[in-house]
Amino acid sequence: MENRSRGLFVGRFQPFHKGHLEVVKYILSKEKKIIIVIGSAQYSHTLENPFTAGERMEFTWRALDEADVKSDRYYLIPIEDVNIHSIWVSHVVSRVPRFHRVYSNDPLTRQLFEEAGFSVESIPFFNRNNYSATEIRQRILKGGSWEDLVPSQVVKYVKYVRGDHRIKILASTDKLHDKP
Amino acid sequence: MENRSRGLFVGRFQPFHKGHLEVVKYILSKEKKIIIVIGSAQYSHTLENPFTAGERMEFTWRALDEADVKSDRYYLIPIEDVNIHSIWVSHVVSRVPRFHRVYSNDPLTRQLFEEAGFSVESIPFFNRNNYSATEIRQRILKGGSWEDLVPSQVVKYVKYVRGDHRIKILASTDKLHDKP
Amino acid sequence: MENRSRGLFVGRFQPFHKGHLEVVKYILSKEKKIIIVIGSAQYSHTLENPFTAGERMEFTWRALDEADVKSDRYYLIPIEDVNIHSIWVSHVVSRVPRFHRVYSNDPLTRQLFEEAGFSVESIPFFNRNNYSATEIRQRILKGGSWEDLVPSQVVKYVKYVRGDHRIKILASTDKLHDKP
Amino acid sequence: MENRSRGLFVGRFQPFHKGHLEVVKYILSKEKKIIIVIGSAQYSHTLENPFTAGERMEFTWRALDEADVKSDRYYLIPIEDVNIHSIWVSHVVSRVPRFHRVYSNDPLTRQLFEEAGFSVESIPFFNRNNYSATEIRQRILKGGSWEDLVPSQVVKYVKYVRGDHRIKILASTDKLHDKP
Amino acid sequence: MENRSRGLFVGRFQPFHKGHLEVVKYILSKEKKIIIVIGSAQYSHTLENPFTAGERMEFTWRALDEADVKSDRYYLIPIEDVNIHSIWVSHVVSRVPRFHRVYSNDPLTRQLFEEAGFSVESIPFFNRNNYSATEIRQRILKGGSWEDLVPSQVVKYVKYVRGDHRIKILASTDKLHDKP
Amino acid sequence: MENRSRGLFVGRFQPFHKGHLEVVKYILSKEKKIIIVIGSAQYSHTLENPFTAGERMEFTWRALDEADVKSDRYYLIPIEDVNIHSIWVSHVVSRVPRFHRVYSNDPLTRQLFEEAGFSVESIPFFNRNNYSATEIRQRILKGGSWEDLVPSQVVKYVKYVRGDHRIKILASTDKLHDKP
Repeated sequence: MENRSRGLFVGRFQPFHKGHLEVVKYILSKEKKIIIVIGSAQYSHTLENPFTAGERMEFTWRALDEADVKSDRYYLIPIEDVNIHSIWVSHVVSRVPRFHRVYSNDPLTRQLFEEAGFSVESIPFFNRNNYSATEIRQRILKGGSWEDLVPSQVVKYVKYVRGDHRIKILASTDKLHDKP
Repeated sequence: MENRSRGLFVGRFQPFHKGHLEVVKYILSKEKKIIIVIGSAQYSHTLENPFTAGERMEFTWRALDEADVKSDRYYLIPIEDVNIHSIWVSHVVSRVPRFHRVYSNDPLTRQLFEEAGFSVESIPFFNRNNYSATEIRQRILKGGSWEDLVPSQVVKYVKYVRGDHRIKILASTDKLHDKP
Repeated sequence: MENRSRGLFVGRFQPFHKGHLEVVKYILSKEKKIIIVIGSAQYSHTLENPFTAGERMEFTWRALDEADVKSDRYYLIPIEDVNIHSIWVSHVVSRVPRFHRVYSNDPLTRQLFEEAGFSVESIPFFNRNNYSATEIRQRILKGGSWEDLVPSQVVKYVKYVRGDHRIKILASTDKLHDKP
Repeated sequence: MENRSRGLFVGRFQPFHKGHLEVVKYILSKEKKIIIVIGSAQYSHTLENPFTAGERMEFTWRALDEADVKSDRYYLIPIEDVNIHSIWVSHVVSRVPRFHRVYSNDPLTRQLFEEAGFSVESIPFFNRNNYSATEIRQRILKGGSWEDLVPSQVVKYVKYVRGDHRIKILASTDKLHDKP
Repeated sequence: MENRSRGLFVGRFQPFHKGHLEVVKYILSKEKKIIIVIGSAQYSHTLENPFTAGERMEFTWRALDEADVKSDRYYLIPIEDVNIHSIWVSHVVSRVPRFHRVYSNDPLTRQLFEEAGFSVESIPFFNRNNYSATEIRQRILKGGSWEDLVPSQVVKYVKYVRGDHRIKILASTDKLHDKP
Repeated sequence: MENRSRGLFVGRFQPFHKGHLEVVKYILSKEKKIIIVIGSAQYSHTLENPFTAGERMEFTWRALDEADVKSDRYYLIPIEDVNIHSIWVSHVVSRVPRFHRVYSNDPLTRQLFEEAGFSVESIPFFNRNNYSATEIRQRILKGGSWEDLVPSQVVKYVKYVRGDHRIKILASTDKLHDKP
């Protein structure tokens, strides 16, 4: 029953971009299934996390469908952050189906899963400078060209929910009652 | 873009049984997609909630696959409870893709979604006395016959994780340091 | 600046009834102002706590107005429960204006405020059997006569928000996904 | 019963200043009642939030009284922050009496209430550079002249609780065990 | 550095009794050190948890001293409950020094630590019917004889903080605003 | 029973250094016992808080033992932060044995305990520039010499758990999913 190999991949996907898509494809070249965790699921409407977990599920699913990644090869699971690192691995493990390897280049993610005894794999980089959600949010904010960096279904959905407008609003303030 | 019709269905699936499967099929006869929320996602290892959200995703997915429900027709999303009813609808809405109708017979679920302006539909009952997770957990606990009430993939997975053993342990105590 | 005498009175007011009104009048006969804390402010839509804090503010204010209790003699402050008794007094104190005496017959409330060094006064009982919110909710639930037990503005408001209907719904279930 | 028009106004009031007073008067020129929410109610003893919710209620009430704003025209309600923006509107709505319009110039507040279907109005600015709580806290900290910027009852109360001393202490550190 | 053998023992110690003392001695006959976790550390002033974690540390330390258990052979550590069983082991592990074996007869504690890969040992029972904190609290409540069941230092300290009086108060109500 | 004099000392001990040791000795020259609170107990694996509470207990205990501070003269108690300053003193008080004086140079700690009516003492400074945990973490990070600033048992334990390696990892990122 456990001979299905599965890889875990954690991201915030604010928004899901072409680099993420390459990672998904890479992991699927190594594993039968991928568990895609949408992290920081509780946050939205901040400059770092403009989209809700539901919106992120929606555009990620559309992008994977567009790229012909079959829905029976991935799980897409929103998971809330706990800000206590010592329990984070248990928190994730209890909320996802069993997996065999973690794919991550993030040093802290790697450290925490390794301390808990998991096997952790690195991910090759895919045009890291541009395929960066921070870069994309900055371009949206400044009116630059960002559409080439994300799958076209994501562009479409971000515009549909007026995500570009939302990011501009959040740039002026993304905390409630920050002032005066 | 919004012409896809979608129904929301919330359950705890402790475990997923044949009644749940009938509901999923029923909703899919009415809608293009179903969003299946695995509620009380943070809980496990109690008599009411023996299985983790990850385990519930696993056996639900397997049961749907076995029943030939295609994975591109449903989203399976674990959502943690908040015990504050006035914010529960917002909490759910922010974590799932957009939907058009809620399917529920639970009076409180109906009330809360209706107060928030959602359209709520009833679900026909499918052998309600037996297709009950409470009944199934009781039968597992007392060594009765429960296997006919759940899809065979669920039986298999529950046994694989020794869920029957776990439920018996939890029957003696499911709170930490309850006594002495 | 501190020569204004003030009394603190904590309740859940589910709903505000004539006994509560008598208590408010009694305390105002002893003090210049009363601080009325609406406790368990986060809860609503349960059988014990059917009304939101906002609704409770609304009907309490109307009842006091109807009874000619001037709004410059009371503060009406919703406060969320913390379930950790050792910090509860600090929690309340930080959220209300300064006060000089606590009025309560509840043994635990008295004990906690006394341990923290506050002066605690008892309240005379006003027809305790009937002037009980539990009794009133039971009568609403069972279709009995409850209108005489609460100020007429509360009756009016409860009916306006269909509170009687809500209590009947909550009687069948007031927990989400309780079953099956 | 719903023909009373009411406006909602959210602030932190650290401290309540003459600009806030102008806003209250402005809204009361448009509405029958104003609901004044004291946000970030759980915080105190930080440089951004030096005063407790109780202290803020106290000096706000005194300032309104001094300005001859009658207590039957406003509700003053402390509300704790939730740091999850998607549920913030529901959180507020459940804790206040019903209202008809939100008055705010804060882009995120406006966005969240608009997404939830509320009517949102702008507020004219009243000497924005000086009537700023941040500016006032800075002046208190640096020993500058701040008393003209706040109602005289607020000056009196801030001094009574030694708020100027407190702000100076918090300027050296407002986090516990920050170092060494 | 890891050749010191250590055992973990978790209890609520409401109050610490002679059965607990026997367990501590038993574990110390097997291990070099014992880590005594005072569970449910956040709770106090309820019928199940009348004493604060600080009080429990105090009387446990006194009882161990009286029994000539040297303070360099045990750690006494208060740990708050998390009500999410899947993360409980990580929660405990991050808050205590390293240990080699868990001593427990509680089925859920055993199950959770075993699932996490720890070695779990049973404890012989020491007059289980009487050496029970529930029994002791009942006797205190009903004015029965309880002093023989706990070490004399615990008797002394419980009386010093008027714990018997507190338990009687809590018996009438241990929830805030329970009624009316 | 209360004639034992005790001092409270709160720190994060990331890591415990020679300055902390001097403080402990100083307080023990004034009091019969010291209660050492390990603050921010829930945090670990961040640049500010690299070590878990359990690790901090371990190396602090070893350092005190090495310095011949007897274990019957101190309590070592991990306490989680609450980020709400108005309840912090109650939170601490409920989790530690009774004490008579607080020793602290931190202005906010002093302010909060003084507002709550406690007696607060200052601590003489012991080579403050070097005996600083921030300085020590910086030196570890940059490969500088830090071993002289902490007791040799702490050096040994930090190296045993590869704390130097962990701090370097955390320097690149100490938040989960920070980017991209």
